[in-house]
Order: sequence, then C-alpha cells, then structure tokens
Amino acid sequence: MSTNPLKVTAVDASAAKPAKVAAKQKKSKKAEQFLLKTPKGTKDWADKDMVLREEIFKTLSDAFKRHGGVTIDTPVFELREFLTGKYGEDSKLIYNLEDQGGELTSLRYDLTVPFARFVANNSITNIKRYHIAKVYRRDQPAMTKGRMREFYQCDFDIAGVYDSMIADAEVLAVTCEGLLNLGIKDFKVKLNHRKILDGIFQACGVKEEDVRKISSAVDKLDKLPWEAVKKEMTVEKGQSDEVADNIGEFVKISGSIRETLAYLRSATLLKDSESAQQGIKDMETLADYVEAFGIDSYLSFDLSLARGLDYYTGTIFEAVTAGSAPPVDAEELKKRAQAKEVEDASDYVGIGSVAAGGRYDNLVGMFSNGKTVPCVGTSFGVERLFSIVKARSSKDWDKLSPSHTDVFVMAFGGGEGWTGFLKERMAIAKKLWSAGINAEYIYKGKANPRKQFDAAEKSGAKLAVILGKEELPTEQVRVKVLGQGDDSNEGELVSVDSFVDHVKEQLTTCHVDGVDVVARMVKNL
Amino acid sequence: MSTNPLKVTAVDASAAKPAKVAAKQKKSKKAEQFLLKTPKGTKDWADKDMVLREEIFKTLSDAFKRHGGVTIDTPVFELREFLTGKYGEDSKLIYNLEDQGGELTSLRYDLTVPFARFVANNSITNIKRYHIAKVYRRDQPAMTKGRMREFYQCDFDIAGVYDSMIADAEVLAVTCEGLLNLGIKDFKVKLNHRKILDGIFQACGVKEEDVRKISSAVDKLDKLPWEAVKKEMTVEKGQSDEVADNIGEFVKISGSIRETLAYLRSATLLKDSESAQQGIKDMETLADYVEAFGIDSYLSFDLSLARGLDYYTGTIFEAVTAGSAPPVDAEELKKRAQAKEVEDASDYVGIGSVAAGGRYDNLVGMFSNGKTVPCVGTSFGVERLFSIVKARSSKDWDKLSPSHTDVFVMAFGGGEGWTGFLKERMAIAKKLWSAGINAEYIYKGKANPRKQFDAAEKSGAKLAVILGKEELPTEQVRVKVLGQGDDSNEGELVSVDSFVDHVKEQLTTCHVDGVDVVARMVKNL
Repeated sequence: MSTNPLKVTAVDASAAKPAKVAAKQKKSKKAEQFLLKTPKGTKDWADKDMVLREEIFKTLSDAFKRHGGVTIDTPVFELREFLTGKYGEDSKLIYNLEDQGGELTSLRYDLTVPFARFVANNSITNIKRYHIAKVYRRDQPAMTKGRMREFYQCDFDIAGVYDSMIADAEVLAVTCEGLLNLGIKDFKVKLNHRKILDGIFQACGVKEEDVRKISSAVDKLDKLPWEAVKKEMTVEKGQSDEVADNIGEFVKISGSIRETLAYLRSATLLKDSESAQQGIKDMETLADYVEAFGIDSYLSFDLSLARGLDYYTGTIFEAVTAGSAPPVDAEELKKRAQAKEVEDASDYVGIGSVAAGGRYDNLVGMFSNGKTVPCVGTSFGVERLFSIVKARSSKDWDKLSPSHTDVFVMAFGGGEGWTGFLKERMAIAKKLWSAGINAEYIYKGKANPRKQFDAAEKSGAKLAVILGKEELPTEQVRVKVLGQGDDSNEGELVSVDSFVDHVKEQLTTCHVDGVDVVARMVKNL
Repeated sequence: MSTNPLKVTAVDASAAKPAKVAAKQKKSKKAEQFLLKTPKGTKDWADKDMVLREEIFKTLSDAFKRHGGVTIDTPVFELREFLTGKYGEDSKLIYNLEDQGGELTSLRYDLTVPFARFVANNSITNIKRYHIAKVYRRDQPAMTKGRMREFYQCDFDIAGVYDSMIADAEVLAVTCEGLLNLGIKDFKVKLNHRKILDGIFQACGVKEEDVRKISSAVDKLDKLPWEAVKKEMTVEKGQSDEVADNIGEFVKISGSIRETLAYLRSATLLKDSESAQQGIKDMETLADYVEAFGIDSYLSFDLSLARGLDYYTGTIFEAVTAGSAPPVDAEELKKRAQAKEVEDASDYVGIGSVAAGGRYDNLVGMFSNGKTVPCVGTSFGVERLFSIVKARSSKDWDKLSPSHTDVFVMAFGGGEGWTGFLKERMAIAKKLWSAGINAEYIYKGKANPRKQFDAAEKSGAKLAVILGKEELPTEQVRVKVLGQGDDSNEGELVSVDSFVDHVKEQLTTCHVDGVDVVARMVKNL
C-alpha cells in the first residue's frame, strides 16, 4: 500500500549500518554483510524440534509435580544490584539492559538467584518450586562448546528448614527420576559435599582465603590431567608441592557413598577438621535416604567434584551421561559452520553435565538482611538432553508431526456447477472444533483431491472427512482413515448428524498419533 | 560459612548505591530506600494465580492446536535494526540491551515482528503458528491503566497465499473460540478493514500523506467523544471542518457485517474509491465465511475501529467484553499502591480489549527484500483475561491448590523405640512416584499426626497412605480419603504389595482435584 510509511526494509537499514558497529565486529572473519538472523548465541526453535522440546519440558515438569513442586514465573530481568556479586568470575557474562532512565536492570543469569530473591521478597519460609525458563549468558566465543547465550533451564528447588539431608535426598531422587523419565539409563550422578571439600583443603594446608580458588582448580579435573591441575595450584595459585600432593591423594577417590565414606572415616588428616566431620555425618545420613529411594546405584561420591558457583554450602552434584553427548544440534551446527560462526564441528562435542545442583543455605539471606532460608536444588540442561533424545530418535523422526491435527476436511467433486464446498467444509470443521477435535481444511475455494490428500498428510491428520458431490446433498459424509496407503478406499459413509461421534470413536483407535510418537521418543520406548 | 566470599548482601550493595543512580530516579516521590522488589512494571507470578494462568495458556493453546497451529520459540531479544521502524510512535518504548561489544539488540516489543522475521529467515511460504511468550514495553507511567512492562501475549497467525478472506475468517473463529473456551460469553469483536477506512479518508478529502495520522485520531473514538476527535483532526492535524464532518458521518456507523455493508454499498462518496470497493468486496466474502462458522453474531462491523499499529493492510479487529473489566490484580494493585507506584486504584480500571489483530501483508517482505508472505493473526491479552477469570472464580478460589499432590504419606506411632518411619515413608513415596503418582511426605524424622494432616491439607492431597506402628510390621498400610472432615476414620487396610493399585483406583474416584477445580474455573462452569 502506498500509504504505508514503513517502506524502509530491514535490508535497507542494514546497508546503512554505521561503520562504528562494523568496527566492533572486526574480530569476525566473515565479510560485514547484512545477515537476516537471530542474535549471536540465540536460535529459533520450530517444527519437530519444538514438539520434542515441549515433550521434554512436560516430562520434567511432571516429575517436579510428582514431588509436590509448584511453579512460579519471575521477570526475565532483575534489578542489577541483586545479581551483583553472586556469580564470581562469571559476572562479566551478565547481559545489562541499557540505561534508558530509571532502574538499572540485567537479564537473569540463572533461575537460582531470582528464586532466592523471590523467596526473600515474599517472606516465604518453605516451598518446593519448579521453574522452566530461559536464562542469559554472554559467553565468548558463544558458539563453541555448544554454549548458547539464551538457553532454557529446568530447575527444581526445595526451600525451608527441614531435618538434615531429607530435602537433599529428594532433590537427588528428582534428578535421577527426571533422567530416567527421559529414557536415559546410562548416567552417573557425581556427588560431593562442600564442607568435606573445604575440610580437605584446610587439612592439606590451604589457607582459608585460598580455598575457593583451589576449589576452582580442582573443578577442572574432569577436563585436565592431574599434572595440569597441580601446576595451576602450585605455579599459578601459590601452593606448595606438598599441599598439592596431599590434595591429589584425596581428589582421586571416588566410589559408592559407602565406599568413599569408609575412606574418609579412615583419613587421619581429616580427624580434626570440624568442617569435614560435619560433611561426613551429612553423607552418612544421606546414604540411608538414597538407599530408601533405591537410587544409590546411580550415585558416585567423587571427591574431585567441586562445582564452579560460589553459593553452594553443602551437597553438590553433577549428572553425566556415559560417553560424550552428540553435538548440540547437527543441523544448527552445519548452518553455523557455513556462516563461519564456528571454526569446526568438533567445537561442539564433549559437552558436559546434563543436570547439576546442590545446597545453598546463605543465598536467600543475602536478600533478606540475613534472615536465611536454606535451599537445595537441581537444574536440568535442556539443550543437552534435547540433543541426546533427538539423536536416538532418528528412526521415528519421519513419523513425528509438528502439528496436532487429527482430522482433515476435504471436498470431492468437479464438473459443471461445482462450487468446491468451501462453506460446507467450514461448517463441518466448525462442528469438529466445537467437539474439541483438531481439524483443518485447505484454504482454497476449489482444490483437487490430490492436493487435499497431500495437505492432509503434511498436517499429520489421521482421518479425513470427505464431502462428496453426490453424498452431501443426502446429508452424508465419508470418514476415511488416512496413512493406509490406499487412497482408493473411499471410507465409511456416515450421516452429517452423527459423523462427529463416529470421528471421535475412530480417533480413539488411531494409536499412532503425533503425540504418541513424541512421547515414545522421549520415554525411549 | 566463613570462607564464602559473598558476604556483601543485596542490602549492603544498595546502601552503597551511587548518587548518580539515585539522581536519575528523582522523579519518583518515594524516598530513595532499598526496596526488595521486581523491576518497575514487572511482577512475580506464583501460587494459585500461576495455576490459573497456566490453565488459561493451556486453554488457548488447545484452541490454537485445534486449528492446526504449530508453536515456535524465538529469542527474547532481536537485532535492533529489525525492530526499527515497525511500531510508529511507540518505538520509544522498546527496551534496548546495553552495548557490551558486539551486536546491538533489543527486547521484543510484540510477537508479530519476530514472527515475520522468522518466516523470512526460514524462507517459509505458509504456516499456522502460535506463540505464547513475554513481550516488553517501557510504558510510562508504567503502572497506570493496568499496563505492565513485561507481559504475556498469546498469538495465533496464519501466513501464506490463500484464497481471499478464508484465513481471516479462521482467525476470527479462533478469536471467538478462545474467548468462549475461557467462559467469556459476553463479548463483541469489532471489525473493520484498512482499505475501506483508507478509502473513506481519501474520499472525504484527506491527503494520502495524512491518512495514517487521521486514522490514529479516529482510533481514539472509543475513549474520546466525537467533538474531541474532530478538534484533533482540524486544529492539530490541519483538516477542514468539511473533511472532518464527512469522516464523522462514516465513523458513527456500526452493525452486523451485512448491515454495515449495505450502508457502504449505498455511500455515493465511495463509489469511485478503488480501495474502499476492494475492501467492501473482501467483507462480502468474509460475511459468507463467518456465517458458515456460526460466529457472525459475535461480530460488529464498526467503521470507527482504526487500530494503532502501522503494519495492518486489511481486516482489523478488536474483541471487547461487556462492561469494564476488573482491575489487573487486586492484590498486586494494593501492594503497588502501598509502594506508591500508582497514584490511585482507579488508575487500573477501564482496561481495553481482550484480543485484537488483523491482516499485515507487507511485514514479511520488509525482511526478505520484498518477497512477501501475506499474514493475518490474533493476539490475546492474557493479563486482562486472567483478571476476568479470577474475578468470577472467587467462590471456588479456596478449593484451588497450587500443587498437584495426590497422595500424602504419613507415619503414626510414638512411644518407646518409635523411629518415625522416615525411611519407610520414603520407600512408600518412591513406589508411588514410580507408578507416576504425585506424592509427598513431611521432611521430618518424626512428626505427630496433626502436623502431617495439616501438611497434607496444605498440599491439596486427596489421599493419605498411613504407615502405622502396628500395621507396617505386618506389611500393611492404611489408605484414607482426605477432606471428609473425619480424621478419626482410619481408612482402609491394604497390603504393601498392592497399595499402589488401590491408590490408583481411589484417585480415579476423587473428582474434586486441583486440576479439575482450575479447569472448571477457566471454563466458567
């Protein structure tokens, strides 16, 4: 329309992109050309991927609800001061909103700090809450190692004063159940306790002010050999050889909770560490509870697990699947590689844990002037779980439909005076919608049968309701089961008055519908 | 823990807030004190409100799926240049992310422009997509008129080249169905066509370059009397009295589609307007289709409807409920009023439409160098719908539970050697979880029956599984229906081997569960 003032297209706008912006992107090797895309580190989700991800969300939220979880929704951005000082070195990855006059705010970095703010804000003393939502991290380089800048977390946390380790055991049970419900059987939950770890460091001779940085060196043991970690402790972080070697003896220990406990109990170096002894007592209690839940076989008490975040105060854990997980998303990867956003496909492999969490007893107190509410929680990494589920679902992928359409309404006719029955198709579709049935028809006045069958197949519909030139005037339609590879079968003739009931009945017998396919995929059946 | 370096609390951080920030907020009347809260114009959602809102989302997405909709997820922020020039005067409300080196991005303002970008980005030729997600607008003053800065939109859009007005009719059908499914019967969908409106303006003597601004004056007719709008057209926007009066004759017309069409067909002034005649032809076609869908009685063809956004090119519509809607959220309002964020409760009343949309045939083309894909869509305003549903649900509100717990596992005992059966309760809960049953127990080693019944009631559980000191050693538990006001009834004795099946059976007969309550609320039964 000539009166539309929006004639400047995005493409034009880009052509006029100021040199300043281009200069900022000079590190990028690709030519500075307009690219119609999502911001770096973000992506669109659509089609079958979206259906699969929704089913994963449903599976996890069902697990959370099963354990009494209630859900909340907090704003995507928080007052900036609330995020400050919560993430250690990673604070530089926080996205700030522009100062447009008013409050200074930032996008949330995780769901844990907003949860603590929520608990303090609403003077909550106990809650089991789950929250499935996006978080934001300006990771650089964004696309290597499969790290996105916008990604989902699925968190379940228990806040409140309870008897020791009961909530910790339940959070571990939820973690195992979540993974099992996603058809992942081959996983281990590595488990440790910050008080034991801190006790070990202190007993080995690390000064209190060095504990967190030595902890972060130990945290790298899943990626680096001991020699490299030792070098970091001694050369970079100023510990003596003896201190490092002492630590080295401990952190190579892992096994069942009972086995590692036996080792710790016999460790003379820890006898006088109040912190370690308290942690050991906690783990003994926990051992009983995880046995009651029957999840002890999934757990590995691993003294090398340290976890990066500062706010943990007790149990910490990280679930890993056996072997390295597949690339984040093969198609996405290919696209990005073509756009030269990643150097190489191998940047993506070897992604880490699929769920992780721990106890953080002091975080709520930071928001409520010290009136603390102890918390423990778990967080599932959805993009990684998605990759695993998708990779193993390739054989059923073709059967998956992005839409939930059950019935396709068609008209057959032709010849002189043929109207195409558009209004009649609409009226029939309306009857189906009113009965709660998902139905589509082709948006054309007249369409040949082939086009309508093709559209029906694309929609994933299980049934066709066919309005025939001969049948409709006698108040009858045909109901035909689709996907039988037999288009000549004309289906069953039913009166317009009763076809809805007939359709309902037929649908209950169509086992292979889109939802079932995706449920089977996620459950790994 | 003394080794935790995060001793700076949020409260401390705030006390040290630089004077610069405080100065920026000087317009605010309240003293510059630390306030633990969400950013202005945002809120936490939790508890029963959250359950109700989730059910509203489900109801709307079910309606979208019923019409063949597939869902997508786009990033919360987009490249800034893509949002530029799409929202007219309202562009100043866009939230920008800080320039932290790299791309310039902004939070999405609606779901429509990201959808158009998505369609162009992925070279999609046709799709019916729905998207339920948050959008961001820096509205000022933020809290008056019920406007939030972060709020949800529920959008359904049909993109693709189809025969005229079929998709428009389906979008109107989805709009009516969505509202009806939410138990809202008393609504009208005001309908107009941009081509008719533009034809009227031109035929009345408005110059082409003035059409959009005269359109935006007409858009105010639902809030202002004709005299005020006329004054805006003449005094502010330079039209002659005659032009304004000519327009005035048209924009007072509304009625059924057929009635307004009859008026337009007889309007001699429009006879030579190609634009108006094309719009009239479209509306004639549409009249047939909405009658086939049986939704014509909900529609009012109202020549005063103009809609603010620039990108519409054809049908436009706006659904309003009878009478003014209740405040956005009475509790929230009270809280905000106490925090002096709103002047007065009356700032909230008189909120506008509950759904709106229209046809925008040129938007995708702006992203794809003119290769256009015509679109038409509808958007539901969830906060408003939430207010309506909540306000009418007060009588059932107490029955609503925020959690989905079905079974509470308890232990009764006491006296010498009483362990509290904690591990036994855990093992019983585990059996229930494994069977997919939502179950909780109290996180204490020992708890008295009263405390456990209270916790069960709070959880909304329908059944108790009771582990008695006498019964459990004989491998038996009691299964008791809760909420009968009869705590002395000890329930049924069942063997540990078969209690899960018994629980399942009992649950199917418990009609009044949390989910049913909320479903009834939303359906307005």
